[in-house]
Amino acid sequence: MKTLKIANIPGDGVGKEVVPEAVRVLHTIADLHGGLKFEFTEFPWSCDYYLKYGQMMPEDGLKQLQHFDGIFLGAVGNLNLVPDHVSLWGLLIKIRREFQQVINIRPAKRLKGIASPLTNPKDFDLIVVRENSEGEYSEVGGRIYQGEDQISIQNAVFSRKGTERAMRYAFELASKRKAKVTSATKSNGIVHSMPFWDEVFQDVAKSYPHIETDSQHIDALAAFFVTNPSRFDVIVASNLFGDILTDIGAAIMGSIGVAPAANINVNGKYPSMFEPVHGSAPDIVGKGIANPIGQIWTAKMMLDHFGEQELGSHLLEVIEQVTESGIITPDVGGRATTSEVTDQIISHLKK
Amino acid sequence: MKTLKIANIPGDGVGKEVVPEAVRVLHTIADLHGGLKFEFTEFPWSCDYYLKYGQMMPEDGLKQLQHFDGIFLGAVGNLNLVPDHVSLWGLLIKIRREFQQVINIRPAKRLKGIASPLTNPKDFDLIVVRENSEGEYSEVGGRIYQGEDQISIQNAVFSRKGTERAMRYAFELASKRKAKVTSATKSNGIVHSMPFWDEVFQDVAKSYPHIETDSQHIDALAAFFVTNPSRFDVIVASNLFGDILTDIGAAIMGSIGVAPAANINVNGKYPSMFEPVHGSAPDIVGKGIANPIGQIWTAKMMLDHFGEQELGSHLLEVIEQVTESGIITPDVGGRATTSEVTDQIISHLKK
Ligand SMILES: CC(C)[C@H](C(=O)O)[C@@H](O)C(=O)O
Ligand SMILES: CC(C)[C@H](C(=O)O)[C@@H](O)C(=O)O
Repeated sequence: MKTLKIANIPGDGVGKEVVPEAVRVLHTIADLHGGLKFEFTEFPWSCDYYLKYGQMMPEDGLKQLQHFDGIFLGAVGNLNLVPDHVSLWGLLIKIRREFQQVINIRPAKRLKGIASPLTNPKDFDLIVVRENSEGEYSEVGGRIYQGEDQISIQNAVFSRKGTERAMRYAFELASKRKAKVTSATKSNGIVHSMPFWDEVFQDVAKSYPHIETDSQHIDALAAFFVTNPSRFDVIVASNLFGDILTDIGAAIMGSIGVAPAANINVNGKYPSMFEPVHGSAPDIVGKGIANPIGQIWTAKMMLDHFGEQELGSHLLEVIEQVTESGIITPDVGGRATTSEVTDQIISHLKK
Repeated sequence: MKTLKIANIPGDGVGKEVVPEAVRVLHTIADLHGGLKFEFTEFPWSCDYYLKYGQMMPEDGLKQLQHFDGIFLGAVGNLNLVPDHVSLWGLLIKIRREFQQVINIRPAKRLKGIASPLTNPKDFDLIVVRENSEGEYSEVGGRIYQGEDQISIQNAVFSRKGTERAMRYAFELASKRKAKVTSATKSNGIVHSMPFWDEVFQDVAKSYPHIETDSQHIDALAAFFVTNPSRFDVIVASNLFGDILTDIGAAIMGSIGVAPAANINVNGKYPSMFEPVHGSAPDIVGKGIANPIGQIWTAKMMLDHFGEQELGSHLLEVIEQVTESGIITPDVGGRATTSEVTDQIISHLKK
């Protein structure tokens, strides 16, 4: 019996509604399989937790998480309760950084039965490999002077190691897919970090002569996500550029509610974390209409990560059978509830 | 007689094809008006010029431009001939910086007769006010170490003056429009410059209590440009964020070939520069099919800038009459040539 110990952090808002649904799905898959078992331990760390205890997680929170096989997270943040820099940097980003989850993988793919806002999305199926530990999201910087002379300086920090690591990950991934990697750059405007990024990309590309490469400025690339997303296979991007591209990727899929993601620790020292792209969506909390697909597709990425690619691929097929049948939540134009969608997925799995 | 002395820099590629078309339009407008005259002086500065003379413009290039009322530019850059950092920083960005063209205004609006890639674009009509002199496009930064330890640091520099100036410009513009300003931020991830940006935005907003305000993270904002662009009026953004948003804006209009822009000098010390969003498009050069609308709409922005808003508004109406009639270039699904589109615009103007 293969037992996977998973730390669940439902977090805030709809995170608390979709994580239990994905857990139901994972238990079903394990039961059907027979040789696989999930042991979930739930942690209530969230903005509510912060309001009670003055921090997003306990002092020894990371220690508590460290020995799990994986972390399954819903959504963090609720601006009505706690400022973002406190909630995110105290939980989500803290875990990403301290557990060296240096790669964020985010697929965007056209799903059958879910309308894209694009008139001609074709069958796009791409993955953004986002550098997840440095770049534009750095704590280095500060201010000088007061009043009208004030200047704020923000440092973006790109290390050769971090950049190369993300790029190699992208090339390896592309080797198993359509063998194409696009680099998101902006070296025509950002004259230090982005020419550096380009150089590393050219270097890394040399080790993968069978992979087709392409380099696009982020402005043009963002536009291509709208005009022709099907031209892409794997895209490698900095922390900020990957963030922007994957929200556009979610938009063209039809809803941020379906977009999955994984934060990958590549050195094996800490657990990886699986969290969908969407946030806590306070506006729809409690209505039972949150789309569970982002979280369930994220569960598929977790299965893949643990070597269960067959189960993972099957789960994605089943998700598409359900979306194609029209049992979908209101964010994608349907009338089904969160649990109705999950029930359908489970009953298709059992077929 | 009001005479406007304009420096024309057709630049590279399709720039050389569309600038003369827009010049024909401007002469027509002036002739019909009677009391207005354009005097154009052409400068051949471009990548071709660089190949001959080893620089994008002569040493005293800026001096030559300084006393014109405005600069009318086509497109700069051709990667096949000259690296971008040479061509752009030696001409386009140099003029923007040295002539203190600190604001870049870029409208995006649904045009009749031009298909958007969005299924439901509604009637969006927005303007991005982009800070054009500092921010993420700074020359501050560098590298340390060699080989696998190498680190590249890029500084983004936000001054209170520069930030406030862009924001005030946005609020003033919104006062004459739908009275709404959206700020593009990313303070949840970029923890120095973006919280600073947010603070300045809140401060400036206080002087404009009649303007509705809104703050969105760039990732969500980019997605909203795809899912619901009609919710926006004026958006104020940093140099990089404005760059990205306006390319998406161009994409949802149907083609980057129609997107106009203006680089505004606000202290009156130097001329402003009018250049469309598109680049030199080497792939379609010489075919006579470049879309002239971006450049002609840019001419409209130049008219507005010189106080001729009535002529400007009329020109945009005429552009839409022509696009609605189906006389459009291949990039937007038509079969007309560059000059056929311009001829139609001119004949509609003469009606
Ligand atoms: C060519 C490039 C440097 C430029 C920019 O980003 O400013 C272009 O993308 C633009 O938007 O005018
Ligand atoms: C909440 C925010 C800091 C986060 C990010 O930008 O990393 C989010 O947008 C994401 O993409 O996971």
